[in-house]
Amino acid sequence: MKKNEKYEQDGEQNAEAELTQVEGRNAVLEAFRSGKTVDKLYILDGCHDGPVQTIIREARKQDVILNFVAKERLDQLSRTGHHQGVIAQTAAYRYATVEEILEKARAKGEPPFLILLDGIEDPHNLGAIIRTANQAGAHGVIIPKRRAVGLTAAVARTSAGALNYTPVAKVTNLTAVIQQLKKEGIWFVCADMGGELMYRLDLTGPIGLVVGGEGDGVSKLVRENCDMAAAIPMKGDIDSLNASVAAGVLAYEIVRQRLKLQ
Amino acid sequence: MKKNEKYEQDGEQNAEAELTQVEGRNAVLEAFRSGKTVDKLYILDGCHDGPVQTIIREARKQDVILNFVAKERLDQLSRTGHHQGVIAQTAAYRYATVEEILEKARAKGEPPFLILLDGIEDPHNLGAIIRTANQAGAHGVIIPKRRAVGLTAAVARTSAGALNYTPVAKVTNLTAVIQQLKKEGIWFVCADMGGELMYRLDLTGPIGLVVGGEGDGVSKLVRENCDMAAAIPMKGDIDSLNASVAAGVLAYEIVRQRLKLQ
Repeated sequence: MKKNEKYEQDGEQNAEAELTQVEGRNAVLEAFRSGKTVDKLYILDGCHDGPVQTIIREARKQDVILNFVAKERLDQLSRTGHHQGVIAQTAAYRYATVEEILEKARAKGEPPFLILLDGIEDPHNLGAIIRTANQAGAHGVIIPKRRAVGLTAAVARTSAGALNYTPVAKVTNLTAVIQQLKKEGIWFVCADMGGELMYRLDLTGPIGLVVGGEGDGVSKLVRENCDMAAAIPMKGDIDSLNASVAAGVLAYEIVRQRLKLQ
Repeated sequence: MKKNEKYEQDGEQNAEAELTQVEGRNAVLEAFRSGKTVDKLYILDGCHDGPVQTIIREARKQDVILNFVAKERLDQLSRTGHHQGVIAQTAAYRYATVEEILEKARAKGEPPFLILLDGIEDPHNLGAIIRTANQAGAHGVIIPKRRAVGLTAAVARTSAGALNYTPVAKVTNLTAVIQQLKKEGIWFVCADMGGELMYRLDLTGPIGLVVGGEGDGVSKLVRENCDMAAAIPMKGDIDSLNASVAAGVLAYEIVRQRLKLQ
C-alpha cells in the first residue's frame, strides 16, 4: 500500500517537473540569481569544477539541500538530455517566511494560528491541508525542507486556489522554529493518539498545530518540543485517520474553541 | 483544474481495472453467476444476440447500470483484446446492504450513525471518508450507483484497511433511501454552506450525515429531503473544503456532541 502511494506521488511529481525543472549549469545558476525558489538540486557526484562550485555556493547561501547523484539518475531525471551534471527543480509557488506569516496575524489583529506539518509526502494531502488552513482562518502553513513534498503544481491544484491566499513557509529545522516561536508566546499542540482528548485542552490564544506525516506521525524530537499533545477520539478498528482529515478535525477544534470566546 | 483531477482519477481507475476487469461473454456471465458485484458493465451498442441478452437480463436482475458503447470505446478499455462486445468491471470489495448497516448499529446498541455520499468521484476522497467513518464510529457508508466512484482497489488502498470493517452500501436512489430511513426514525443532516452553523444543531440521536461530491456539493433533491443543513464555519477566501476534510469535520462534530451525552 505504502509503496503504491509513493509510486503515484513520484509519478505526479515527475509529470509536474517538466514545467518547473531547470537543467544545465547556466540555466540553474540563472534560476538561483533570479530569485526562484529551488526545491531540489541534483548534482553529478564527484563533479567539482568551477561552475558547479559556484552553483553549490549559491545553493548553500539559500540553504538548499544538495543531492549528489550518479549520472544514471541525472539522465533519468533529464527532460532535455543536456543536464551538464546539474538539474534544479523549482517551486511552483513562492515560499513565504515565518515572519510574513506572523505579520499576517498582526495585520488582522488576531492571535497567531499556524499549522506545522512534520513530513507530509502526499501532494493531495498538502493541498487539502493548505485549503483547510485557509478556511479555518490559520495565518499560514510551515513545512520542513527534508522528507516532505514542496509546493509542486499538484499541490497548488489540490489546494483549490488557497495557495494564492495562505502563505506557506519552508524551514530547515522545524524544532528550531518551534523553540523560537515559543519565546514569542505561541503555544504548540501536536496531533498524538496518546495525548489528551482534544476537547479537554485549551486551544485558544496564539497557537501552532503540529500534524505528522502519512507514515510515522509527528517525530519524537518535534513532539517533545510541543506544549500539549491532542488526541482525536478514535473509535475504530484501524490505526489512524488520513493526515489531511486529522489536520482538518484538529484545526476545526481550534476554530470551535476560538468562536466560543467571541 | 477539474479536468486534471478527472484525468488522474480515470488513469488510476484504469490501472486498477486490470485486477478486476472481466472480458468476454462467458467470463462476464460467470462473474454475475458467481455472485461478484459488477460495478460497471459495458456492452457493444446494437449487439442483441442470445448470450448478450442473457447478460443484460442478469445485469437488470442485479440492478447494474448498463452502458451501451461504441466498439472503439470497448477496444480502448480492453486489456485482452478479446472482449466479444462485453466488458464488466467488478468491485474490489463486497457491498453491504443498508439493512446490514442498521443491524451493525443494533448489535452495538448504539443509535445509527450513517454517512451518505452524494457523488464523490475521487477514489482518494472515498477511501479517506471510509477511514473517517470507521474512526468516528459510524456504522456504515452509503454511496449512489451513478456519477460516483465505487469500491475500486484504489479506494480500498486509501481506506487503510477500514474497508474490512466499515460496511459500504451502494444504492440506486439516495433520496428514496433517505425517505425510507426517515420513517425508521433517523434524522438527516446535509453539509451545506448556507445552513445553520453545525455547533448550533442537535446532532445526537439516530443520524445520517449527507456530504456532497467534489464539484457541486449535495444535489437539490437530496438536500430538500434532509431535516437539517449544517455549515462548517468558513473564514477563508476560497469556495469550500476538500470533500473528505469536510466529511471529517462534520462527522467529528457528531462524535463531539455524542460524547457529551455520556
